[in-house]
Amino acid sequence: MDIEIKRAADPFPHKSVVACQGIAGSNSETACRTLFTDPDIMFFKSFSAVFSAVESGMCQYGILPIENSTHGSVTAVYDLMQKHSFGIVKAVKISITHNLLGRESSRLSGITEILSHEQAIGQCSEFIKSHPHIKVTVCSNTALAARLVAESGRDDLAAICSIQCKEIYGLKPLAIGIQDAQYNCTRFICISKSPVVYDGSDKFSIVCSLPHKPCSLYGLLGIFAQRGVNLTKIESRPIPGTDFEFLFYIDFEARLSDAETKSLISELEGYLSKLEVLGIYSEISDASE
Amino acid sequence: MDIEIKRAADPFPHKSVVACQGIAGSNSETACRTLFTDPDIMFFKSFSAVFSAVESGMCQYGILPIENSTHGSVTAVYDLMQKHSFGIVKAVKISITHNLLGRESSRLSGITEILSHEQAIGQCSEFIKSHPHIKVTVCSNTALAARLVAESGRDDLAAICSIQCKEIYGLKPLAIGIQDAQYNCTRFICISKSPVVYDGSDKFSIVCSLPHKPCSLYGLLGIFAQRGVNLTKIESRPIPGTDFEFLFYIDFEARLSDAETKSLISELEGYLSKLEVLGIYSEISDASE
Repeated sequence: MDIEIKRAADPFPHKSVVACQGIAGSNSETACRTLFTDPDIMFFKSFSAVFSAVESGMCQYGILPIENSTHGSVTAVYDLMQKHSFGIVKAVKISITHNLLGRESSRLSGITEILSHEQAIGQCSEFIKSHPHIKVTVCSNTALAARLVAESGRDDLAAICSIQCKEIYGLKPLAIGIQDAQYNCTRFICISKSPVVYDGSDKFSIVCSLPHKPCSLYGLLGIFAQRGVNLTKIESRPIPGTDFEFLFYIDFEARLSDAETKSLISELEGYLSKLEVLGIYSEISDASE
Repeated sequence: MDIEIKRAADPFPHKSVVACQGIAGSNSETACRTLFTDPDIMFFKSFSAVFSAVESGMCQYGILPIENSTHGSVTAVYDLMQKHSFGIVKAVKISITHNLLGRESSRLSGITEILSHEQAIGQCSEFIKSHPHIKVTVCSNTALAARLVAESGRDDLAAICSIQCKEIYGLKPLAIGIQDAQYNCTRFICISKSPVVYDGSDKFSIVCSLPHKPCSLYGLLGIFAQRGVNLTKIESRPIPGTDFEFLFYIDFEARLSDAETKSLISELEGYLSKLEVLGIYSEISDASE
């Protein structure tokens, strides 16, 4: 394959400078602390700034949410992948519990406005629908929502956020575990500036566009099926400005060291009009810790 | 096939009672007026209420956005499909231009807060990013955003909405055509209580879950490919509460009258653990009017 992929010289580090979106108490921080024992976390306002911090070399790694089991893909992160240069080096899956936190003097019945990130709002849609008089305002991070509530001086304002924010921002739980589904997990990717491969990597992420011919997705899946390679995800994202043309983001299980993988990649390169390997990595989960 | 699908006794009507999300000036209204010459429109606050109005028989038809060429699928509508009973009877694709409208006395440089629907916000991400000091607040509809601006008495508040809202709410354009991509189209579906098929219908929408076996998506696509049937869309949505299990929403080109279609559907029924036909219909676009 003509894609430059280097094996990592050292094992995946315990500590490093890591970019996370949001502020202290965010779910990105939880994901980061599941991957790194002793990270030096720099917080950024937007997903785009996390990509840029890694691209510029300011941070060695960056943490980004990619998919939630209730609400689906974090499409904003997929769309930013088109605009940045990076490599995925690890993935981590963590359980997410959403809670409604207000100030010490607040009561649930007095809340008129909720702040949170749009993914959290989507994951708590039943709770929100059952409180139709409460206005919902989007902000860029669940922990920022908690801090804004703490600073607001308002007893009618509450945040949907992690329980960690209770201690960090001195808030009071008004409702616990308000997400629609009890099983609610988010997968995060850990990116670096260039796509190095650490030992034990068993998962590929690629992005591609399909050739303009009939049944081209079927043809693509056949290349995997014929080798018994298991796809773990396909996500299609529109290419802005086109008449519903798509990029396909595909995750599959394979090891770089297998001879079969080399033939798979070269057949993909021949078949696809565009192919990029976003990373080769392993995934851990907080339950497996 | 054991799915009950009736051919319509009459042609698709010019006038009817139609449920739209939002208020006057919404893009759903534009889609509705592209499909019906003389609709009697009832506006509802949420997508869920549009489904319910049709399900209960209060409205004969309902209009729902399903996919945008820049921002992707309207996942909230896909997720509501799991909860309601309906049939898709038509589809319509319309061009969307987003504009920033303020009050007569407003200037762009004085705006501190923008209101709009989250899809519109997503489609104008470049404009929003280039004005980082402006707070963005989500509301349930672009036209509602326009009305709230008109009623606010605030010169620092603006709405991202259609140009129709200029006349309807007496607003002033502060910026025109602010969507990221110049080509920006949204597809809407028109639903009825039960899935009747009008003359000229050439597109199927189905929802299914895949059998638990390796390469099951490949096997599914093979059933279509082997017959040369063209898929126009696949959307996967997580089943809440599961560990990343998915429902697949698939659109394909076929006519109910073809013998081949009958064999296709019966092979699909044999292969899939769940299959539901959401509708058989034709699609028009505002450019084709």
